[in-house]
Amino acid sequence: MLSVTPEKQRSRFPEIGDGSGLGPADAFYREEVALALRNRGMPLEGLRYPITPTGMHYLLVHFDIPYVEAGEYSLEIGGLVERPVTLSLEDLRRRPAVKTPVTMECAGNGRALLEPRPISQPWHLEAVGTAEWTGTRLGDLLLEAGVKDEAGEILFTGLDRGVQSDEVQEYQRSLTLAEAMREEVLLIYEMNGQPLEPQHGYPLRLVVPGWYGMTSVKWLARIEAIQGPFEGYQMMGSYRYSNNADDAGEPVTLQKVRSLMVPPGIPDFATRVRLVDAGEVTLRGRAWAGRLEVVGVDVSTDGGDSWSPADLEEPVGTFAWRGWQYKWHARPGRHTLCVRAGDNEGNLQPFEQLWTYLGMGNNMVQRVDVIVE
Amino acid sequence: MLSVTPEKQRSRFPEIGDGSGLGPADAFYREEVALALRNRGMPLEGLRYPITPTGMHYLLVHFDIPYVEAGEYSLEIGGLVERPVTLSLEDLRRRPAVKTPVTMECAGNGRALLEPRPISQPWHLEAVGTAEWTGTRLGDLLLEAGVKDEAGEILFTGLDRGVQSDEVQEYQRSLTLAEAMREEVLLIYEMNGQPLEPQHGYPLRLVVPGWYGMTSVKWLARIEAIQGPFEGYQMMGSYRYSNNADDAGEPVTLQKVRSLMVPPGIPDFATRVRLVDAGEVTLRGRAWAGRLEVVGVDVSTDGGDSWSPADLEEPVGTFAWRGWQYKWHARPGRHTLCVRAGDNEGNLQPFEQLWTYLGMGNNMVQRVDVIVE
Repeated sequence: MLSVTPEKQRSRFPEIGDGSGLGPADAFYREEVALALRNRGMPLEGLRYPITPTGMHYLLVHFDIPYVEAGEYSLEIGGLVERPVTLSLEDLRRRPAVKTPVTMECAGNGRALLEPRPISQPWHLEAVGTAEWTGTRLGDLLLEAGVKDEAGEILFTGLDRGVQSDEVQEYQRSLTLAEAMREEVLLIYEMNGQPLEPQHGYPLRLVVPGWYGMTSVKWLARIEAIQGPFEGYQMMGSYRYSNNADDAGEPVTLQKVRSLMVPPGIPDFATRVRLVDAGEVTLRGRAWAGRLEVVGVDVSTDGGDSWSPADLEEPVGTFAWRGWQYKWHARPGRHTLCVRAGDNEGNLQPFEQLWTYLGMGNNMVQRVDVIVE
Repeated sequence: MLSVTPEKQRSRFPEIGDGSGLGPADAFYREEVALALRNRGMPLEGLRYPITPTGMHYLLVHFDIPYVEAGEYSLEIGGLVERPVTLSLEDLRRRPAVKTPVTMECAGNGRALLEPRPISQPWHLEAVGTAEWTGTRLGDLLLEAGVKDEAGEILFTGLDRGVQSDEVQEYQRSLTLAEAMREEVLLIYEMNGQPLEPQHGYPLRLVVPGWYGMTSVKWLARIEAIQGPFEGYQMMGSYRYSNNADDAGEPVTLQKVRSLMVPPGIPDFATRVRLVDAGEVTLRGRAWAGRLEVVGVDVSTDGGDSWSPADLEEPVGTFAWRGWQYKWHARPGRHTLCVRAGDNEGNLQPFEQLWTYLGMGNNMVQRVDVIVE
């Protein structure tokens, strides 16, 4: 065996590609890489599609993807309800169907850009996607089951089990009754017009539009009305905006405003730095704001010193992203392109990172380095 | 901003989960992580499916996923042929169709387990998948075009462009005429019964069963008969079994024999170490050997000290993996499970790594650490 590690592939961007400047802050753990290989980002050129192709949609699986035989599946609705019910997949498919596009994003999107870097799934910016989801309204089912007055929350339990923070657990999240009853909250059995693939929650998952992805529990085993508040690990130990290990912080809930661009030009294989032909370049991307509306997208071609408004397209749906375009006259040299969006409540993406201990909700502006020739 | 990096998530496997023992060899570069987030592995629980769901199949994209409008697409077949032809996607769909399962694997699978670690896409073991591919025979098209006597190779060019090793390039690979004419070599327009998704080569790709994946060029723009040998970057600069940067080495061609198992039990989120209930456990997995046949699979439950034969299922197809099972009586404690396959030419997976400079074809046996309770 040789005793030297091959250098990173040489590239035409030597100051990026040769490993200089990569200090301890870039020393990722093997476990982070293993998570990145399992949990799939949407390559950012996927922003070209208003509806993300199924296999290009981002994916975060906490434990293993459960293996489910369709014929053996049933969903239980119970707990503090007057009329507990067990439903087969066919029962659910016979109910009134709703099909709607939803932009889903992982709460940890942007985590691995933070300094210092929280150690978990090391997302850069690709933990997002928009699918057309088909299912039936949760609220109608809860009305039929008759949620009792003493119930304050609805608890969702997935078939996925594993160990996190020393605790053997099923994946569980709750919503307040008011949130669970919202008309856009759906029990989903199709994604982009096809039965759910296993990794996206087959046979049945929750989709809660406007919230970060952790709320949309996959592989639903049961739904229970409980008094609450539910204080399981995925509510209290994770998905918190906290400052340190001892800070309970605040719960992570709705998606924040964000815009991303399709990196223009062509990439270097190893560094992903972009090479762009000089002349007129149409920059494109998409922006979303969860339950709110995107009201403006600005582009900077000088690293954030100055900003100009982009042209907005119509939103793909009430809870889905909208496209934007911006014409740039690219002159030879190096440039850093940035994009930021603002919503109808006056929130604007920050230029500086939003650091929290678990790396949640970091919606700082995207930076794309390009070389124009 | 705080000045400390949070520790890796605590787990019940402290010697693995707390960061001790992670020396410089585990210091992955940010660029490797960025590649891992784009290039998707099949989570190994995906070995349960004889045909991998589309969005779970592994994916390696050298540059960007090209955006193709279906109506504007055409394939050119030219070069040293008597009758050059341009074909639309509809022309290709009207030709005789073949549907066949093929196990595809990236030549770099196993790279990031090597010490020292070659720097590129940091695959552990998940760069594999089996899809049902539908298309038409390349050989028939070449016969119709009339390949001239002086042609020795067929060159395949994708629509994907980028920079690699300081060179702006289209993705290009060649096959000898004899290889290209083999009856199993197909021009593919459907994967698992659906039109190719963009990331898998929409609208048309090559599939060369038995070879590592780099040969199955995606987003085919043109096919040319050439004198050859073609000496482009993806033939001479990459995909070589070489010992150092100055060693031309040998070309990477056919898949080697390999077996993988579904990690049993449940995982720890951060470390992926497995927790298994004591008692009888059925270990399962799949094995493949490219153009050859898998004739045996052995399992070790003591880290490779002793081996026992697994039961083999029928192959999913001539060029597709076959399942295996092994009943293990799991006793409490720590165990390292291993699996190895052998083919009909007497090749057996090695227990020690096969180190090459670019990390190609490392088919050493899988090791899965488990804790039985």
